[in-house]
Formats: sequence, C-alpha cells, structure tokens
Amino acid sequence: MANPVNVAVDAMGGDNAPFEIVKGAVDAVNENDKVAVTLVGREEIVKAELAKYKFDESRITVVNADDVIETAEHPVHAIRRKKESSLVIALKLVKEGKADAFVSAGSTGAVLVGGQAIVGRIKGIDRPPLAPVLPTSKGPALLVDCGANVDARSDHLVKFARMGSIYMKYVMGIENPRVAIVNIGAEEEKGNALVKETFPLLKECDDINFIGSIEARDVPSGYADVMVCDAFVGNCILKMFEGVGATLFSEIKASLMSSFRSKLGALLIKPALKKVLKKYDASEYGGAPMIGLNGLVVKSHGSSKAKEIRNSIFQCVSFVEADITGKIRESLIQ
Amino acid sequence: MANPVNVAVDAMGGDNAPFEIVKGAVDAVNENDKVAVTLVGREEIVKAELAKYKFDESRITVVNADDVIETAEHPVHAIRRKKESSLVIALKLVKEGKADAFVSAGSTGAVLVGGQAIVGRIKGIDRPPLAPVLPTSKGPALLVDCGANVDARSDHLVKFARMGSIYMKYVMGIENPRVAIVNIGAEEEKGNALVKETFPLLKECDDINFIGSIEARDVPSGYADVMVCDAFVGNCILKMFEGVGATLFSEIKASLMSSFRSKLGALLIKPALKKVLKKYDASEYGGAPMIGLNGLVVKSHGSSKAKEIRNSIFQCVSFVEADITGKIRESLIQ
Repeated sequence: MANPVNVAVDAMGGDNAPFEIVKGAVDAVNENDKVAVTLVGREEIVKAELAKYKFDESRITVVNADDVIETAEHPVHAIRRKKESSLVIALKLVKEGKADAFVSAGSTGAVLVGGQAIVGRIKGIDRPPLAPVLPTSKGPALLVDCGANVDARSDHLVKFARMGSIYMKYVMGIENPRVAIVNIGAEEEKGNALVKETFPLLKECDDINFIGSIEARDVPSGYADVMVCDAFVGNCILKMFEGVGATLFSEIKASLMSSFRSKLGALLIKPALKKVLKKYDASEYGGAPMIGLNGLVVKSHGSSKAKEIRNSIFQCVSFVEADITGKIRESLIQ
Repeated sequence: MANPVNVAVDAMGGDNAPFEIVKGAVDAVNENDKVAVTLVGREEIVKAELAKYKFDESRITVVNADDVIETAEHPVHAIRRKKESSLVIALKLVKEGKADAFVSAGSTGAVLVGGQAIVGRIKGIDRPPLAPVLPTSKGPALLVDCGANVDARSDHLVKFARMGSIYMKYVMGIENPRVAIVNIGAEEEKGNALVKETFPLLKECDDINFIGSIEARDVPSGYADVMVCDAFVGNCILKMFEGVGATLFSEIKASLMSSFRSKLGALLIKPALKKVLKKYDASEYGGAPMIGLNGLVVKSHGSSKAKEIRNSIFQCVSFVEADITGKIRESLIQ
C-alpha cells in the first residue's frame, strides 16, 4: 500500500475543540486506511481525548503546541506573534512537507493569513481564494471567493475560475464543470465594473466551460458548478444561504409546535423533512478549501462537529491523490 | 374630505397585465376612499377589464397609451423611443403633477431609467436608489439599493441611509429605525474599500440611528430596519432571499408528497406552514419604492397579482400623505 495521506489537524480550533475535532480525526482514520492524522494542540489534553477511542495508533500522531489563536484576535498579529500556536505549528508541518494538508475549524482570518504567509502561494497565484462548497438542488457547487479578496481584479477572477474547475473536476468528480460569474442579470452588458471587465476574459478561456452569468436567485438551484465573484459578494451569498435557511427552518419549527394538530403532523413529516435537511447540509462536503497554495488548507465551520472534520480530512485525501496543486501549476503555463 | 391621492398605474406592465393590475386598482379604490387611480394603457382593453367590476367611477380614470415597453427591450432606448408607451405616459402624469405617484410591474430597467429621466431627481440626490422591503422575523426591513447604482460611492450610501430612515419612519411607522451597512464582519475595520470609506461617514451622521455593520446572515432575522449597500450587493442579497426561500419550499413540498405518511402529515401542518409563508410574503408590503425623485415611483414584482398592486397603491398613499419628498428635501439642507 502507498503511504497514507498525512493531514495536520488543528486540535484546538473551533467551538467544539478539542472533543469533536479529535473524534473526527479518529473516525477518519478508522473509516479510511489511506488517512493518517497529525493532531496539533496541547499534548496532554489531546492525548486524554484520544484515550477514549480505539484506532490504529501508527496513524495518529500528536504534536504539542502550547498556544491557541482565538477568533477575536487580529489575524496578522496573531500569526506573527503566536509562534507556538496550534495553527502556526500545523501550517509549518505542511510548509516543511511533513504533512500533506491542513484542516482547522479555528479563526477564518488567521487560517487565511497563515495559509498565505506560512504554506505560501503557488507561483503565479497572487490571491489564493477560499472556496466553500454549497449544497444545491443538483448537488455541490463551489463559490470562489469567500476569503480575503474583497476588492479583487478581473485577472484574479479568471484564475478563480480555472482553479475552481480543476477542483470540481478532480476532487468532486464533476466532468466539464459549468463555470458562471455571479451577476445581477443574464445579459453580457449587465454588471458592475469588475464583472463587465471579467466577462469577456472568461469567454476567451478555452480551458474552462464558461456558461455566462448566474443571478443570485439561481445559486440554490444548482445552475452552475463553479461560481466566481469577489469575496465581498461571495461572503454575502454564503451568509444569505446559511441565514435564510436557518431562519426559515426555525420559523417552520416554531409554527409546527404551536398547536396539537401541527405537532401531530410534524411527527409524520419528520423523516421527509430530515431528508431535505440532509441534502442541504454543507458539512456533508467537508470544509472550504483555500486553493492556490503549495499544499491544501481547509477551513471548516467554527461550529464543526466530528462529521465535518472527518469529511474535511477525506477532502484532503482526494485533493492530494488528484495532485490538484500540480494541476493548478500546469494550468498557469499556457 | 381632502382630495384623494391619485396614483398612476401602468395597466400594461408585468406578467399578469392587464387582468391583475386592473383588479388591484379596483380593490384599492373599493377598500380605501383616500385613493384615486389613473390606469394608463390601451383604452379599450383596460375599459373591458374595468367593466367586470363595481366601483366608484369618479375615482378611476383611464388614459390611453398605444404602446407597451417589453422587459427584453433596452431601457434607455425604449424610454427615448416609445413616447406613446404606458410607462412613459404615466411617468409624465407624475412629472406634470397630474398624478401623485406611479406603480408599475413592468421592466425594472425601464422604470429606473424613466423615473430619473421623466419624473426627475430631487436636487442634491444624484443617484436615486430602488429600495425593496424585505420580510424578516421582526417585520419589514428596507434594502437600499437594489437599483442601478452598482458602482456606488460612499456619499451615495450616506444619502441612501438618510432617505431609508425617513421612508421607514414615515411610511412604515418604525420609530428611530436602526440603520446598518451590509458588511462581511461586525468590526469597523472589516469590509471592501467602499464599506471602509462609508462606515465612518455614517457614524458621524446624527440624524440617523446607525448601529454598525450587518452581516448577510443576519438580514433575515431582522437585525436592522434599513440596510445600505451598493446595488450589486443589494441585488445578490434580494435574489438569494427569494431563491433560497423558493428552493427550500419546493424541496420540502416535493419531499412531503413522497409518501402516504408525509402526505397525511402535510395536511395537518398546512395551516401552520401557511402562517410562515404569509409572514415571508413580500407582496404584503407592496412593491419597491424608487426614492429620491420628485414624486414616488414604485416597482412591483413582474409576477404581481392584484394584492401586490393594491398594496403598492396603498404604499403610495402613505408616501404622499407623509410628504416623504418634502422630508427628503429638508434632510439635505443641513
């Protein structure tokens, strides 16, 4: 058997660390023998968690890190100063080739800054995007970018489109992924200055399957596999997706509990409703990859439970096995 | 009794014209004696529709317009060339003071262009925004701008905040409306260039109740009464709101119809579900006002039925009675 893919995991990052993080790592190792995990965090705490489970001990290593970066800290300062944090130490393992990829449920800002500063960018990629996978009616779709590039340029968006296509093809198995630019109308002349400048450039790319504009209303229906936009717009779309879903489900739930009749109905429809919830459960697809780095960095939700951590680790295996980093490098030589 | 408010209505605009438009006008007149309506469209068609109903004939006038602007037409060209269209003729009635306000379910682009070009901007307002009312968990909230200002400047956003506050206070009856800027984080240093420039300007305004940033995830929960952003971001938020809601409801519906058990449950929960749907039904609040013009222009959904047209007409009455145009003019002299 080939060497397993070694994923460094930030054992201290996220609302449910270290319990759910360690559990996710154990589940990943137990379910997939291509996986090895390096848990980075306070050694005695992580080891105490690990002692609760049975697993192949040759495939989980613990690396001590005395410090933790909190969500409220300024990302740039935190990365610079907290050299002994789990995040910095884990990212260095990737940088030095001791780990193939990194997963964290910690501070998004610190993951973005640390990914660039420590793991480093692929030559030719000056703005590595964060690209969450959205669950749509037709399956997963990649939204590039939801990261730090809030005032992006057209050439960034073109690279987002290329990298997104490679990711969806080789990690998610979608042949000839449909790429669209987020816009406020279907016509080519619609859009703000950035979209108007980017649209013709995307049309000229013969290495992507560009299908034109996607309006926000068509995002949930799965009209495209890869959707490109600047990170400000991407963040608004991602957060609306989560916010509208959460608000509607909580309103429906409250309304169902308001009378005996609807409570009875709720019992009957529970399995059907659960199926819908599962379909729109983003954690099925793991976390958001930060692409364009010399190695994979995956940011999973702050509220991640073991399942999302496990799926994020599996995502890293697909990424490494498909040599996405190599394929992105090749796509730049054209 | 004072003179009724006279609302010009585009009888030919929208997917359900003229039937639902004429019905909405009749309903408005029959339910509220402060309302008069001028229906603008092909006279014989409009009169044939009117013949189906009973109403006070002194309060509905028909003005003939031989032409119609279609949604697919280029707005600027259409407004310039189709002088005999229902849209152009109705907007001229507002310009000439023969009508107090205008409602259309026709082409958004043509309404925006025509509103500016024919009715004209209030002096000091160079970018009149389109501001739809979103239904949230805590009631209606105004999203300014979803119109044509896709590359807005910070001084535009400040005026959007002022005009939005006036609208929510005097038309929707919300005392001291909470104003927020759409952003990708709660902290003041977050945001793109536009937001970073606008945030301190909004903080300095002592005539608005600025509460800071609103993340997209908090839009549906009603965290703010007025939300300002450029029209590209506004359009994405509005369309995600509609798209996620529509997709989730259709998935839930399909899932409920998939077994006998869930069908039975669906029957029992129907009244509870309807209550939620009604709460998030934007048509309860009428259409989207275009504010900052010398008169009110309301764009209702292309798919508007009689109820939304009627509510849009009522919205015009509140607007005119509260003298919003006068109050906006005053707010500019500071």
